[in-house]
Amino acid sequence: MAAASISPLAPKTLPALPPIDGVRFAAGAAGVRYQGRTDVMVALFDRPATVAGVFTRSKCPSATVDWCRAALSDGRARALVVNSGNANAFTGAAGVATTTAVAKAFAKAIGATPNEVYQASTGVIGEPMDPAPIVNALDGLIAAAKPDRLLDAARAIMTTDTFPKVATARVKLGETAVTINGIAKGAGMIAPDMATMLSFVFTDAPIAAPALQALLSKGVERSFNAITVDSDTSTSDTLLIFSTGAAAARGAPMIADAADPRLAAFRRALDKLLVDLAQQVVRDGEGARKFIEVKVAGAATRRAAKRIALAIANSPLVKTAVAGEDANWGRVVMAVGKSGEKAERDKLDIAFGDLRVAHAGQRDPDYSEAEASAYMKKSKIVIGVNVGVGTATAKVWTCDLTKEYIAINGDYRS
Amino acid sequence: MAAASISPLAPKTLPALPPIDGVRFAAGAAGVRYQGRTDVMVALFDRPATVAGVFTRSKCPSATVDWCRAALSDGRARALVVNSGNANAFTGAAGVATTTAVAKAFAKAIGATPNEVYQASTGVIGEPMDPAPIVNALDGLIAAAKPDRLLDAARAIMTTDTFPKVATARVKLGETAVTINGIAKGAGMIAPDMATMLSFVFTDAPIAAPALQALLSKGVERSFNAITVDSDTSTSDTLLIFSTGAAAARGAPMIADAADPRLAAFRRALDKLLVDLAQQVVRDGEGARKFIEVKVAGAATRRAAKRIALAIANSPLVKTAVAGEDANWGRVVMAVGKSGEKAERDKLDIAFGDLRVAHAGQRDPDYSEAEASAYMKKSKIVIGVNVGVGTATAKVWTCDLTKEYIAINGDYRS
Repeated sequence: MAAASISPLAPKTLPALPPIDGVRFAAGAAGVRYQGRTDVMVALFDRPATVAGVFTRSKCPSATVDWCRAALSDGRARALVVNSGNANAFTGAAGVATTTAVAKAFAKAIGATPNEVYQASTGVIGEPMDPAPIVNALDGLIAAAKPDRLLDAARAIMTTDTFPKVATARVKLGETAVTINGIAKGAGMIAPDMATMLSFVFTDAPIAAPALQALLSKGVERSFNAITVDSDTSTSDTLLIFSTGAAAARGAPMIADAADPRLAAFRRALDKLLVDLAQQVVRDGEGARKFIEVKVAGAATRRAAKRIALAIANSPLVKTAVAGEDANWGRVVMAVGKSGEKAERDKLDIAFGDLRVAHAGQRDPDYSEAEASAYMKKSKIVIGVNVGVGTATAKVWTCDLTKEYIAINGDYRS
Repeated sequence: MAAASISPLAPKTLPALPPIDGVRFAAGAAGVRYQGRTDVMVALFDRPATVAGVFTRSKCPSATVDWCRAALSDGRARALVVNSGNANAFTGAAGVATTTAVAKAFAKAIGATPNEVYQASTGVIGEPMDPAPIVNALDGLIAAAKPDRLLDAARAIMTTDTFPKVATARVKLGETAVTINGIAKGAGMIAPDMATMLSFVFTDAPIAAPALQALLSKGVERSFNAITVDSDTSTSDTLLIFSTGAAAARGAPMIADAADPRLAAFRRALDKLLVDLAQQVVRDGEGARKFIEVKVAGAATRRAAKRIALAIANSPLVKTAVAGEDANWGRVVMAVGKSGEKAERDKLDIAFGDLRVAHAGQRDPDYSEAEASAYMKKSKIVIGVNVGVGTATAKVWTCDLTKEYIAINGDYRS
């Protein structure tokens, strides 16, 4: 399942994740599907945490997504339970029963109510998921949970990921330093409109659930909703943020409203952390050898800019050209054209990095094939497009499309 | 450029194309880009033919597409000139000048007006296209044109195609037998909403241009607009139909209105021919090893059914699973979910061929992995989905996504 070697685009180092007061983590090998590796993680909150979430826009969401959406109406969390190996998606009434059984078992064990137990599942779709392996692992997980085991948790939720994805930030809320830690998993079936896969963010900043939700919904737009690997959208995409509020004991102000000016630094740090995690997902895109940034300018609206950027980022022909280190800007034109958004063909500018390859609707007179070819050998490729109709911009990230993507996905299930 | 070996999905035989009175064809090696092969074709009409067309929905169409759209306001054709090797797309004012120069040269040579000279170009985008090679080949092409050379023409417009695509039909119009011949090219950059690449259809049936246009616009919806190879849309897609009207001399009635009941058989034959050509394009999809038919039923509207079908047909994960002979119906669920159209998860049925793999929102109790795996080894795979909300249906065709697609597109230009 897991690819043999780590993506060449993986970050060179893993940051240390400072513990956050009020939350402990554990990972275990429950045997949901995989053998010989961890496949379940828990986060346990000493006191009820505030929580907010964003989910897949799939019309066929998984049982766990349905569960979290319903639970969020309370906005309080005591536990998060995540498994890999089985997505518990398209499993009908049996899937709902599994989710309920897991929630009840954890709730009972920690003295919480079932709807304080958040869940996510990733893996194969359509396989009935037995709750027993997770329920049986429960006592061991609870006993093992420690504040410094978030990295283990990140490893337990990997599927075709080749490296664990973690990020951390330290920032002032009022006069008090607070911490934000995040993890993510995802390598394929990553597409616009909630391209998450799974990502979980934890903070000790005391922020009320509605404010957390506002921060998260805004932050996701330019991070997880601005990446794509293969244009496919999972049934299970889940991004949750939990706040233990423990920094209040050290003097951090309670924040009830997302518009509170004291949130400015926190908001910037959270946005940056979400972008970091989202980019790591792209850097682990199945078979990826190159990281691609698509920057669109001069669009009529921000929405149009993003649609054009995603049309480029999702184009198999653009992505295979980048894989082949071919400065094939004609395919960028094609992708702009197919986006359906307004573009002035005769004002279109296209650049690879700092090299302008097309200007005013035709090949740049100064275009140098040698320079462009040299640029395409880099591991990060920036495709810049100005569509010449307005002032709106957008930025999205993707990876190239290689034979390894086909190899990974041609025999994932079997 | 052209792949080394013929697609395993190619038709086993080429039909003989009976000559159509009033139109002659020639192919030549003009040296637009390729060497050692034909790269330009012409169709010459002895008298002005009626003509209708459907084109790419790209917002950045090629110069030749712009040219044809403008010419169609007259609806009369004396010549069709098509080259491969250069798409004359994104070539700015120089591209317009090239198209004009080619039209003027042919018009002068055959005693027509420039807007009676239809054109199409396929090949690399963004390369300035010199009209000289085509203009220099003009006299030779005109001298060589013969009624029985349509197959040569089909070969001249191939790019990454591995076989020429031709189809023919003979049908009664009134009491008179008429002929329809069609050719097509296309192997990648094939997507919904005018997935043509290039296709040209010729008939001796005397049908007025507005009626031809109505027939063509209708017919394209369930043929060229129902296929996809890679979700990419060319700047140059062009489908033209020409009627010499020569069958009138043998007693065929003049048809002015597409609603004329005498057209029924002709319409059926034309629709079938368009589907045949469109399917041949998919059968030559870059790297294709399997032909996939996606049938959606139970949708709220026909448009919804088609969007769901295309979401499945365009999903890289579905297409790589088929390439890997993996009955991974979970990815079909994923694709239904991402289409954005209404689906009743808990009523969803999925079948591969006659094997129902999922029923009422979960794996079919009678599901047999062995049977499903055996089915996936076939060269034609039928994916059937009932989304359980209404009665509308749609059918689209695509091919699998293989490593050869990446190989072909990773170094097409260089």
